[in-house]
Amino acid sequence: MTPVKTIDEQLAYLAKGSVDLIEKADLKAKLQRGTPLTIKVGFDPTAPDIHLGHTVVIRKMRHFQQLGHRVIFLIGDFTGMIGDPTGKKATRPPLTREEIEANAETYKRQVFKILDPDTTEVRFNREWLGALGSDGMIKLAAKYTLARILERDDFRKRFEAHQPIAIHELLYPLAQAYDSVALKCDVEMGGTDQLFNLLVGRDLMREYGQEPQVVLTMPLLEGLDGVEKMSKSLGNYIGIDEAPDQIFGKVMSISDDLMWKYYLLCTDLTPAEVSELRASGQHPMELKKRLAKSIIQDFHSADAAEGAEAEFRRIFSERQTPTDIEEKQLPASDEPQLLAKIVTLAGLAESNKDAQRLIAQGGVLVDDMKAETTRHALDARAGRSYLLKVGKRRFARVTFTSS
Amino acid sequence: MTPVKTIDEQLAYLAKGSVDLIEKADLKAKLQRGTPLTIKVGFDPTAPDIHLGHTVVIRKMRHFQQLGHRVIFLIGDFTGMIGDPTGKKATRPPLTREEIEANAETYKRQVFKILDPDTTEVRFNREWLGALGSDGMIKLAAKYTLARILERDDFRKRFEAHQPIAIHELLYPLAQAYDSVALKCDVEMGGTDQLFNLLVGRDLMREYGQEPQVVLTMPLLEGLDGVEKMSKSLGNYIGIDEAPDQIFGKVMSISDDLMWKYYLLCTDLTPAEVSELRASGQHPMELKKRLAKSIIQDFHSADAAEGAEAEFRRIFSERQTPTDIEEKQLPASDEPQLLAKIVTLAGLAESNKDAQRLIAQGGVLVDDMKAETTRHALDARAGRSYLLKVGKRRFARVTFTSS
Repeated sequence: MTPVKTIDEQLAYLAKGSVDLIEKADLKAKLQRGTPLTIKVGFDPTAPDIHLGHTVVIRKMRHFQQLGHRVIFLIGDFTGMIGDPTGKKATRPPLTREEIEANAETYKRQVFKILDPDTTEVRFNREWLGALGSDGMIKLAAKYTLARILERDDFRKRFEAHQPIAIHELLYPLAQAYDSVALKCDVEMGGTDQLFNLLVGRDLMREYGQEPQVVLTMPLLEGLDGVEKMSKSLGNYIGIDEAPDQIFGKVMSISDDLMWKYYLLCTDLTPAEVSELRASGQHPMELKKRLAKSIIQDFHSADAAEGAEAEFRRIFSERQTPTDIEEKQLPASDEPQLLAKIVTLAGLAESNKDAQRLIAQGGVLVDDMKAETTRHALDARAGRSYLLKVGKRRFARVTFTSS
Repeated sequence: MTPVKTIDEQLAYLAKGSVDLIEKADLKAKLQRGTPLTIKVGFDPTAPDIHLGHTVVIRKMRHFQQLGHRVIFLIGDFTGMIGDPTGKKATRPPLTREEIEANAETYKRQVFKILDPDTTEVRFNREWLGALGSDGMIKLAAKYTLARILERDDFRKRFEAHQPIAIHELLYPLAQAYDSVALKCDVEMGGTDQLFNLLVGRDLMREYGQEPQVVLTMPLLEGLDGVEKMSKSLGNYIGIDEAPDQIFGKVMSISDDLMWKYYLLCTDLTPAEVSELRASGQHPMELKKRLAKSIIQDFHSADAAEGAEAEFRRIFSERQTPTDIEEKQLPASDEPQLLAKIVTLAGLAESNKDAQRLIAQGGVLVDDMKAETTRHALDARAGRSYLLKVGKRRFARVTFTSS
């Protein structure tokens, strides 16, 4: 990271990639005080499986850490009991204390790949929400009106569509907003889908006589396809725990446009540095390699990034110019021969059964065409010749000859 | 009270005067079991000043007691913190524990004039609502939907009129309904304005897997004017702590129609007994005396009732034949003379100022017509004569003469 010195440079670095920043002037005023700010981000207590999409906000937390601020990784173990109704229909079954603790450890193992453990506080909101008791919950609920809660898009739509809204769902935005009161937050961050909740925090802090927090939202990251939001269920994701080679290959597969978005949201480069890169005229493939290495370095190490690049180069070259292809002569036949048998005879499978398995998995190509069935057969008359490919890197050329 | 023996007689006695009974068949089934039922009525923890209007429900509690059931006088010290939004706009300031305890003692002193202290349990709903804690409140709120809460008339009207509804107000019906769950109520009673809340109790008991309570509402009693609901602020009330003479006089002032309503709602007579009375052909004044004595007997004693009747007879006779009216001769004048001055000259007030005060209070009658203003003046020409009455029992006849 390039040194970020002036308040305006700090502001530009923190605002990089953000969607909402309410209000920028408030953040500037807070930064000008020169004392560490308290930054809160809430996470769901259910089993985490963090992918690159989640890291957008986590990386923004790191940016605050880099500038000397105090970051709170807040696990919503109380609010999780309610279940954020944002965009959801069913509430989740409550987790046990043990499950929550186990999930917190999994979170730590993953997010400390990005965050600095020494300046990250992991907190649980049951600490203060549980302590409110019956009376405190009533008093909290007294701070907000139904009309304001129903301004939330998903509530309004469900209400207007006569879909049921349970009363406790109305308490979710208040409970999570109370976290900001309890922690006296300076800044709360989240995805753009959390904007309403974060603004309730801002309102509620005023109600409790506190300086309202700054609200900063980050965009939802598109997946590898460049269209849908990155998600595990859509398969268009890069997991934080994936192997370096896999991450490298996935990054290389994205479009040039998406690459620039990832540079903005998934690296620590300053806006100025990204602009420089764009102006450098480097080949997109080289830029993607650099991005891939940066991501691997975050999730694994610099060595792993170098290793993945070397592996990628090797495979890529092999793919382009397979020079060491073994030549096999097989006895010709007037009858078509099963591909599985040919693959085995060519030494690309250990047995006929193994060959069938490889074909069934879609791992066998004949002259660059995938064999679709284990019953696939080839014309084996004299003079016929085929380039067989098994998996990513094993090739053989077979030629049928009359003996 | 006449013996009430069969289940159908019990049902008729308990249903006497009620507006809603949901469901009558359920109450019958509960009575048929032959075991004592649990009857709950909720009272507001604010300073009680009980009048005849409040006694309608309290008397119904007594009817259940007379039939051997268990009555719970529930003081809503927790729900009072929320403030029942029914027909109200502002929430009340919370009471201290000491104020609540003091109010409970005042309640007991008053309601035990009607209820049997030995079979009345006084309970406070903080006992179980306070114990719910943050988690319990969330779970309770999860049991009901916004749409069902907004079926309540006053909520719907405020919502449609864009008047603010604080979120905690939505919790009131649920919290008071939870009282029925905690107490495993068989019957809950209240005024007709409480119907919605009582029905939420019925719903909520089902949600908690309990047999739903029977809901019984009693009408809001009209005040002495026979038009407006009895209330202290309207001045049309009979207070439970009022002196026997005052109660007697107030009951004697009501219309014949209202008398029958009071017989229904403010005595323990069975429906059959009220019918008998109506058919008896007694003079309405005698029936009112009987009603007045019944009410005084409830709030004071049989002796006090007899005493009040005797006093009433005495005053009434005096009023009818004022034999000892003082005659006053005043000098005639061609100019009208101020009533206040005439009252003073007649010796019915100590000073002109005193006379003006009496007129302002509506306490001065001229020939049975009330003087409406302190500027009231009388034709004072020779030969004019007026019967002045001040308060209930002071009379003077003034005649203007040319001296």
